[in-house]
Amino acid sequence: MALDAALASTLARLLAERFSTSESVLALHGRDESALPARPPDAVCFPETTAEVSRILAACNATGTPVIAFGVGTSLEGHVLPTRGGVTLDLSRMNRILALSPADLDVRVQAGVLKDQLNARLREEGLFFAVDPGADATIGGMAATGASGTMTARYGTIRENVLALQAVLADGTVVECGTRARKTSAGYDLVHLLCGSEGTLGVITELVVRCHGIPERIAAATVAFPSMAAAVAAATEIVQTGIPIARCEFVDGPAIAAVNRHADLAEAEQPTLFCEFHGTEQAVADQLDRAGLIAGEHGGAGFRFATREEDRLRLWAARHNAYFALLALQPGFRVVSTDACVPVSRLAECVELTAADAATTGLEIVLFGHVADGNFHTGVLVDPDSADDRAAADGFTSRLALRTIEMDGTVSGEHGIGLNKRGYLVRQYGAAAVDLMRTVKDALDPNGILNPDKVLPPRLEALDAAP
Amino acid sequence: MALDAALASTLARLLAERFSTSESVLALHGRDESALPARPPDAVCFPETTAEVSRILAACNATGTPVIAFGVGTSLEGHVLPTRGGVTLDLSRMNRILALSPADLDVRVQAGVLKDQLNARLREEGLFFAVDPGADATIGGMAATGASGTMTARYGTIRENVLALQAVLADGTVVECGTRARKTSAGYDLVHLLCGSEGTLGVITELVVRCHGIPERIAAATVAFPSMAAAVAAATEIVQTGIPIARCEFVDGPAIAAVNRHADLAEAEQPTLFCEFHGTEQAVADQLDRAGLIAGEHGGAGFRFATREEDRLRLWAARHNAYFALLALQPGFRVVSTDACVPVSRLAECVELTAADAATTGLEIVLFGHVADGNFHTGVLVDPDSADDRAAADGFTSRLALRTIEMDGTVSGEHGIGLNKRGYLVRQYGAAAVDLMRTVKDALDPNGILNPDKVLPPRLEALDAAP
Repeated sequence: MALDAALASTLARLLAERFSTSESVLALHGRDESALPARPPDAVCFPETTAEVSRILAACNATGTPVIAFGVGTSLEGHVLPTRGGVTLDLSRMNRILALSPADLDVRVQAGVLKDQLNARLREEGLFFAVDPGADATIGGMAATGASGTMTARYGTIRENVLALQAVLADGTVVECGTRARKTSAGYDLVHLLCGSEGTLGVITELVVRCHGIPERIAAATVAFPSMAAAVAAATEIVQTGIPIARCEFVDGPAIAAVNRHADLAEAEQPTLFCEFHGTEQAVADQLDRAGLIAGEHGGAGFRFATREEDRLRLWAARHNAYFALLALQPGFRVVSTDACVPVSRLAECVELTAADAATTGLEIVLFGHVADGNFHTGVLVDPDSADDRAAADGFTSRLALRTIEMDGTVSGEHGIGLNKRGYLVRQYGAAAVDLMRTVKDALDPNGILNPDKVLPPRLEALDAAP
Repeated sequence: MALDAALASTLARLLAERFSTSESVLALHGRDESALPARPPDAVCFPETTAEVSRILAACNATGTPVIAFGVGTSLEGHVLPTRGGVTLDLSRMNRILALSPADLDVRVQAGVLKDQLNARLREEGLFFAVDPGADATIGGMAATGASGTMTARYGTIRENVLALQAVLADGTVVECGTRARKTSAGYDLVHLLCGSEGTLGVITELVVRCHGIPERIAAATVAFPSMAAAVAAATEIVQTGIPIARCEFVDGPAIAAVNRHADLAEAEQPTLFCEFHGTEQAVADQLDRAGLIAGEHGGAGFRFATREEDRLRLWAARHNAYFALLALQPGFRVVSTDACVPVSRLAECVELTAADAATTGLEIVLFGHVADGNFHTGVLVDPDSADDRAAADGFTSRLALRTIEMDGTVSGEHGIGLNKRGYLVRQYGAAAVDLMRTVKDALDPNGILNPDKVLPPRLEALDAAP
């Protein structure tokens, strides 16, 4: 599909060489980290200012052209796939850190600022940004997705870390939502309506996010367990007793094996907790003591500490690279990532049932996650050219989603819905809540130009009419 | 104004004696704790189930009759005043605690459950609910208002403590929003759209809220300072250095004097911080040491501790009763409560300018608040029969609101907008954001029956057409 000619010339005039229809640029914007087939947009815009985003949206809205906001393409559920062509809005050039207030522990950034870039700047002030998904995503992309990561139990998800944001609506209107105050009860919570809306209600262009002081003391520890159930039970108890653990990650034996091979490590290939404790010298020692006791009661084989920063970073890099380690096992394969999150009391049961199910699929499946939140992932290694693999993976992910819902959980703890999980929303929330989401979508984006086909399942009549 | 006769008979049939038009019942539902003049509804319904709420809303929607959700009437900005008559939905009989899961630290309640009632039940399990506004409000009312209170810096506002909720929309549709998982990124965040919407987008009927383990050790302390600026600077520094203080309340000398008289206490009538520390024995000792050092550096006259529970409760009761203590100073007077919240770096300046302004008004004004969040209140004692008093109070509150906005803050940290503060929304967020709120309101409540005139300022054309 080609772009409307008048629109193309408007955008080219506005952006000059920052408007592109080159095949290679289109191809780069036609996929994300999901296993879904690629689908390029008709054009890519690289705006540098909110005013440009506003003009692009107004022009696209006038012609009913889809607009897909794009950060760095690390989403996992097909969020950025231009299912109906249109214009991809690549926000990576909107990467300025606009205002940092160490006294208020907040920072205003453009949406395209990267997590690691932000942390490098914050570090100069003794601060850090506490939302830590595996990928080096953009802050805008993290907010649009409702991302979280390894430090959620202590510092919250991106939602609790966004104080204010600026967004451009479908018709080009620029809105400022929230304030720099720590809390507000003035008017509807537009900040959290836009967070997690995956670019379907507006395009986030700037954000004020919270940051935190780098703790006086950080200690990381790993502890191996005789079984998955024991590891999860220990993690759950650590959280339930109120130990303010900063990170508590579970990795199963096969995932450790993959990481060992990929990162040249020699961790025991057993179910393992990766933990991190933040605080004063004394507070961390206290937390370590108490967590160590609990781990021991569940058969954990003693804490292995890493307090030197380089050791800690190596440890967390290994954990974050589980996804790439898995990919490296079978060149040409893709990884299907699942994202179940259940009440912590159901976590051990959910993990065990899922592991048992995985063993029946004939696929290579590893299991890891942020167990302190009740959120865990599986990585399912799939040969994209094998219909059998794809069918087995679909069956496994679908059974996991239904199991999660049945346990009062959510089919997405942090990856979002995108294209992949729309089919579960009605089952999770009921039809009335999904209809309410549609009412909001239709009111904010009457022409349906903003990231079409994402988040909301098609209406039944639309399905009937589908080709 | 009388209710539509057919509607009245439908409601009477549905609710029998739980539908009332008696003068005394109407009068009880025509005011809140604001200084606004009373305005009774035309009828009051006392539903006991969500199904009844649904039927009442469907019937009122069909006749375009206003519906005002009502908990126990502790709101401070006129939220529950039936400005156009209609039906008040008194939810106080929906007061059942439905499901408590100590393992997941969550509890499902009906909207009319009271904070103290919930805490009494949680206490049996060693748990507590950490949102603590002064009043013994309903959980539903707290959520609808976006309330917070004294423990926000540590445990978050009501928003961060609501995992899921059930609400009835204008047409009677029942929606379930959120899940019991600790986090979700599945679909639009309807939970936080409804939290803080003050009954204008839907009526909250049930909620799943988080609870917390009662800490091993709780220590309360008071410390008096030579000046307001010193007290605020100390509080700000305690927060900025990352001490996880559970409560940090500022009370000025005149407020202490009022509390002393009211509660028969003998606190020094100086600017004072009321602090509370939660944790293990060791963690609390560590926090006390560090906070004590900071207080001392700002001239704080040594911590006075209360670790015995009855002493602590007396202390906090005194703090919570500041409002009633103030009222007791002048029988027949009303208290106008303000609710500014600014970035913590601006707090000392905002408090000082506000105190200086207060001194020029000729009114009795006390100052207190949750300084760890940058949120402070003033209580302005007003003779409701004095036009001079009312004008002086209006001038003071208006100057404070503008000062707050100018400092990147919010005109409401926790009391909400109600009727009183609608005029500041456009100035705080800009017209585009307020228009977006209106778009949401119109989409969810097309007949405008849900708590009319609250939150959103009238459109300019509506103002022109006003009598």
